[in-house]
Amino acid sequence: MDDMMTHRMLEETATTLSALEEKFEAFTSNVDVFYTLICGSFIFLMQCGFAMLCAGSVRQKNVKNIMLKNLLDACGGAIGFYTIGFALAYGEGGKFVGTAGDKYFLNGYNGRAGKDHIDFFFQFTFAATAATIVAGTVAERCKMQAYLLYSVFLTAFVYPVVVHAIWNDDGFLSMNKKLGGIGMMDFAGSGVVHMTGGCTALVAAIVLGPRVGRFYDQEGKPLAEPHTFAAHSVALQVLGTFILWFGWYGFNPGSTLDISGDKSGELAANCAVTTTLSAAAGSITAMFFDTLLTMCTEGHAEYDITMAMNGALGGLVGITAGCAFVEPWASVIIGMLSGLIYVGASKLLIKLKIDDAVDAIPVHFFCGMWGCIATGLFAKDVGLFYGEGKALGVEILGVVFIIGWTAGIMTPFFVLINYLGLFRVDPTEERVGLDISHHKGAAYDFTTADKGDVDDMLEKRTTAHGGVA
Amino acid sequence: MDDMMTHRMLEETATTLSALEEKFEAFTSNVDVFYTLICGSFIFLMQCGFAMLCAGSVRQKNVKNIMLKNLLDACGGAIGFYTIGFALAYGEGGKFVGTAGDKYFLNGYNGRAGKDHIDFFFQFTFAATAATIVAGTVAERCKMQAYLLYSVFLTAFVYPVVVHAIWNDDGFLSMNKKLGGIGMMDFAGSGVVHMTGGCTALVAAIVLGPRVGRFYDQEGKPLAEPHTFAAHSVALQVLGTFILWFGWYGFNPGSTLDISGDKSGELAANCAVTTTLSAAAGSITAMFFDTLLTMCTEGHAEYDITMAMNGALGGLVGITAGCAFVEPWASVIIGMLSGLIYVGASKLLIKLKIDDAVDAIPVHFFCGMWGCIATGLFAKDVGLFYGEGKALGVEILGVVFIIGWTAGIMTPFFVLINYLGLFRVDPTEERVGLDISHHKGAAYDFTTADKGDVDDMLEKRTTAHGGVA
Amino acid sequence: MDDMMTHRMLEETATTLSALEEKFEAFTSNVDVFYTLICGSFIFLMQCGFAMLCAGSVRQKNVKNIMLKNLLDACGGAIGFYTIGFALAYGEGGKFVGTAGDKYFLNGYNGRAGKDHIDFFFQFTFAATAATIVAGTVAERCKMQAYLLYSVFLTAFVYPVVVHAIWNDDGFLSMNKKLGGIGMMDFAGSGVVHMTGGCTALVAAIVLGPRVGRFYDQEGKPLAEPHTFAAHSVALQVLGTFILWFGWYGFNPGSTLDISGDKSGELAANCAVTTTLSAAAGSITAMFFDTLLTMCTEGHAEYDITMAMNGALGGLVGITAGCAFVEPWASVIIGMLSGLIYVGASKLLIKLKIDDAVDAIPVHFFCGMWGCIATGLFAKDVGLFYGEGKALGVEILGVVFIIGWTAGIMTPFFVLINYLGLFRVDPTEERVGLDISHHKGAAYDFTTADKGDVDDMLEKRTTAHGGVA
Repeated sequence: MDDMMTHRMLEETATTLSALEEKFEAFTSNVDVFYTLICGSFIFLMQCGFAMLCAGSVRQKNVKNIMLKNLLDACGGAIGFYTIGFALAYGEGGKFVGTAGDKYFLNGYNGRAGKDHIDFFFQFTFAATAATIVAGTVAERCKMQAYLLYSVFLTAFVYPVVVHAIWNDDGFLSMNKKLGGIGMMDFAGSGVVHMTGGCTALVAAIVLGPRVGRFYDQEGKPLAEPHTFAAHSVALQVLGTFILWFGWYGFNPGSTLDISGDKSGELAANCAVTTTLSAAAGSITAMFFDTLLTMCTEGHAEYDITMAMNGALGGLVGITAGCAFVEPWASVIIGMLSGLIYVGASKLLIKLKIDDAVDAIPVHFFCGMWGCIATGLFAKDVGLFYGEGKALGVEILGVVFIIGWTAGIMTPFFVLINYLGLFRVDPTEERVGLDISHHKGAAYDFTTADKGDVDDMLEKRTTAHGGVA
Repeated sequence: MDDMMTHRMLEETATTLSALEEKFEAFTSNVDVFYTLICGSFIFLMQCGFAMLCAGSVRQKNVKNIMLKNLLDACGGAIGFYTIGFALAYGEGGKFVGTAGDKYFLNGYNGRAGKDHIDFFFQFTFAATAATIVAGTVAERCKMQAYLLYSVFLTAFVYPVVVHAIWNDDGFLSMNKKLGGIGMMDFAGSGVVHMTGGCTALVAAIVLGPRVGRFYDQEGKPLAEPHTFAAHSVALQVLGTFILWFGWYGFNPGSTLDISGDKSGELAANCAVTTTLSAAAGSITAMFFDTLLTMCTEGHAEYDITMAMNGALGGLVGITAGCAFVEPWASVIIGMLSGLIYVGASKLLIKLKIDDAVDAIPVHFFCGMWGCIATGLFAKDVGLFYGEGKALGVEILGVVFIIGWTAGIMTPFFVLINYLGLFRVDPTEERVGLDISHHKGAAYDFTTADKGDVDDMLEKRTTAHGGVA
Repeated sequence: MDDMMTHRMLEETATTLSALEEKFEAFTSNVDVFYTLICGSFIFLMQCGFAMLCAGSVRQKNVKNIMLKNLLDACGGAIGFYTIGFALAYGEGGKFVGTAGDKYFLNGYNGRAGKDHIDFFFQFTFAATAATIVAGTVAERCKMQAYLLYSVFLTAFVYPVVVHAIWNDDGFLSMNKKLGGIGMMDFAGSGVVHMTGGCTALVAAIVLGPRVGRFYDQEGKPLAEPHTFAAHSVALQVLGTFILWFGWYGFNPGSTLDISGDKSGELAANCAVTTTLSAAAGSITAMFFDTLLTMCTEGHAEYDITMAMNGALGGLVGITAGCAFVEPWASVIIGMLSGLIYVGASKLLIKLKIDDAVDAIPVHFFCGMWGCIATGLFAKDVGLFYGEGKALGVEILGVVFIIGWTAGIMTPFFVLINYLGLFRVDPTEERVGLDISHHKGAAYDFTTADKGDVDDMLEKRTTAHGGVA
């Protein structure tokens, strides 16, 4: 073979190779869209989980109200995050919020094989999660207008600032910035999402006050013992819990943000394992710890499914920051402690007479905080238990920032709307329940068939079969 | 190095490259199967969404009946689509139906790395969606036999003809044919799926007549005002709505049909965004529009969760045709108008005394029609608002074709089975409810524990603890 | 061009190619993680499906109890499978259990792009499925402690041994071993998962005895006819069924274990089709067969949704072994026979006075057994109907092994805990229901708004609008 032929063949090979490289790049980019689409969809379904959990937890007379809030905060959140929230969170430029204009209304977004669009979708599902956490806490007594105002404010502004600080490369706490050599490790948002939502819920619960009959009677006199309102449907609560757990397999592994990255597969797989083990450990620990406490006080064992459910959720929140960074054995410990923290925090709130209709504050705020700190302790190679202290320091700084910012801005917000009379429903309406007061009637109608009609039918049928009685 | 070595090395490289190319092709093909499998599964779950939405919407006495219809139309649809529907829809050859034999019973289907099988699965989930839309509309009064007959007829024949016309390359309205340079743009089926189902529902509702007590009393005398039957469980309705919304992330992005195509990632990402925004805008618009109307007529604000739910569904149906073609800003407008159209159409049906037990006609037929037209208006570069009129013309043609074909064939079908006495249940049975009449009893039994037994247990327990009262 | 340039270019090309090959390998590995993550998540959601199905099937007084069992067996299963189950099942070395130490506590697991971790996650969801099958059967009368003991024992030991025998390459029945040239074909676990769970349920039901009032009255006298306890919520049952069906699209196609394998796409696609058709055929067949039987005995047609639901589940279980091996036409037949077998087995259990609160034994044990045998009959090229008998022989051997091992070890286990008084709840507690006895009260509270409060509110509102009555 002569040189020219060799050369031509070589050129052809190089061209084919280069074409294949391009096709490969394009394909990986498409598969990243696919990955983020599916994980984002799982997270979106968590809206359904929250709605069912909250609906099941409240009294029958407020079911429509709470579900409408769950639905509308997702919708309002979508519009708020589309218009400005996404730009504030992920726009380039500022230390505290994005300043470049190309993400407002997604207006600079036309291409890059859809990467930008799917990022928006994925990040929206996170924003909506942060917002909806609050719905349950303030259920049964919060005005619809207040809730809508709040939820758009949170998704469009408060939450994006937290995201920018910690997840945007330009943010002052971001891993890119490497404070003392390291940034805040909050892989999927124990802090960014759950503490932000949970801290807001805490502020809201304090300003709004407890439901009538929970710690005080209708005249405002303290009750001898706090009254627990029975959940109207434990089946809905369990349904919601399982859907949330399922959604977490999008929330945590999906936070790799792509599947084509060098480490993405490994990280996603680690997340799936740690998420599962922490949830399981949290559920078992919370339930049996509660059983133990009940045995001490009441002398017989009770197995409380609410503890098992919320323990699982606490375990899920607790592992969310560290899911990609900690080893499986550590996730079991994180989950167990999440279970204990949930039970403790739940009892603490009752002691403080803070009324949380669905225990969202113990689950999201307290276990979220624990999740950040746990990451500082257990993160492989860099955590305190691996001999390094800096990471823990940065995690604590992050926790302080989230509480400071969220409480700092939400407290005046809630105080103001409360002062304006927009926050709390009328006491009569609270007694009646919000469904009848504001939502055209009760959520259920279990009226059964009329006895006379059934008799008529049976008679008719008998006659039709030949008159045999 | 000598020539021979160079040449050998070159040959090896070429062989390796060619092997890699093959492996890459095979892999992309497998990932396409993966993509379509997951999206199809999401869509299949919409059957669950419809079942919960319909069950929640009807009275307690017809819950089993409607859910059985939802379940059986998916099953019957699978068999009907397997035997002939898929072949009629996607077989090659004809302008109106497929004529080549290799898709009947999937009999020519053995390979191509599973592409053909997974296509069948995906397309089946669409057919089942079209069929199940009708179940809700005719709930509480339609005979089981009639429903089964109808649903197999629709999935096996009526719907495949529409698919063939618009989505099969051989179809006379397909984008491939380029009527006047352009085919009908119905990316995921506002027209093909939702209008076909919705139009059938409209015809069925007219032929079947309203439920007793809705517009007329038992003697057939018109009521002074239409009576609204309360949904028996709003929780189930909301559950269904969220599941449907979730499923739509398979329905719309999945309609790229693969993820390996050049534009597939970009299109799928765009679909995720526009689907979200349209649903959100539809929900908010419908609810507040209804609140406004209520304020005008009744003087105080009510927030109707049914409006928010159906507004979201209307927004989802409305964006289904254009999801891949329109920009995000346009999807917000399409969603808002879907919300208004839903509310308006719902009121129009009441005015016309057409009884739709779940408002499927406003959601699927009217918003589906709007979705097709909106695509003609807003489709990037080719829509009317981008200065081109032809696309809108073809969309309108498509709408006319779907209505003409569906109404043209379903009207005589329903008239005939009605004439034969197969369509409507006996009036006594309707009063009693179909669950007791035909399904072995009521759907719920909330009998609680016997008081005497509880007392026995408490006494026994006290005794066991040492006789302390 | 001179030789050196050619050579340099060639070397560059070879380097680029080799880099691309590596990137491609890494990417396929990541996508496999993605595939297994999503399929595993679908399967995890089946826990929710089982919880809803079981909860709906029992009486109102035992709803919390059964759901707690469903939740805790997943949690306990996760810990049990993490500590030793996974190692026993998939560890290398032994014929009957894994002996190598690197899978206990996942301790040898740190890398290979996450493949090992995601395998654990996927296999855990299978183990949890096997365990939870039993919950429904023994509902309403089994002690919580017994259930927890059992479920950890099953997931940590009994089930892993079955897995090792059939799915581990070292197992004595594995396809790798090729008994008589062929190993047991149980693609996704009709035998390994469903028969193991179902056989355990059968043994448990026999040892535990029927619920009071089912076949015998409170004094132990046989009833004239068996009494059927009404399901407390058919809506929950249907919800559970649809979620299970959805989850099966992870269970069956996901059992390719990757999507990068040569045949993975083709097999997964085949699974999606056969799974759908078998479920559909099973549902239709079971329901109409039951309708036919009812017509013969009672003279009029009833359409029983429970039959349609369990028929679909039977069809799903029946196709699970052969889903990747049989052709679509065969899956229709397998599904139809699953439907008949379900109905027959359900009636057989009643005849034998074995009480299964949710008919899990007919669905999982009997249809699971049929699934294994059907694979021996219909598996393409190697089944009996393709002229080969060996495969059927091995399938039967597998069935015998599963029954022998499971019944052999579970019978003494249940007999022992029964003897120790740990198995069955106190008769008074059974009458009261387990929710009040052991779980802090009933699962539902449908107390409606107080009439007086509503009147107050309406009066107040009227006054607010200007005193007009």
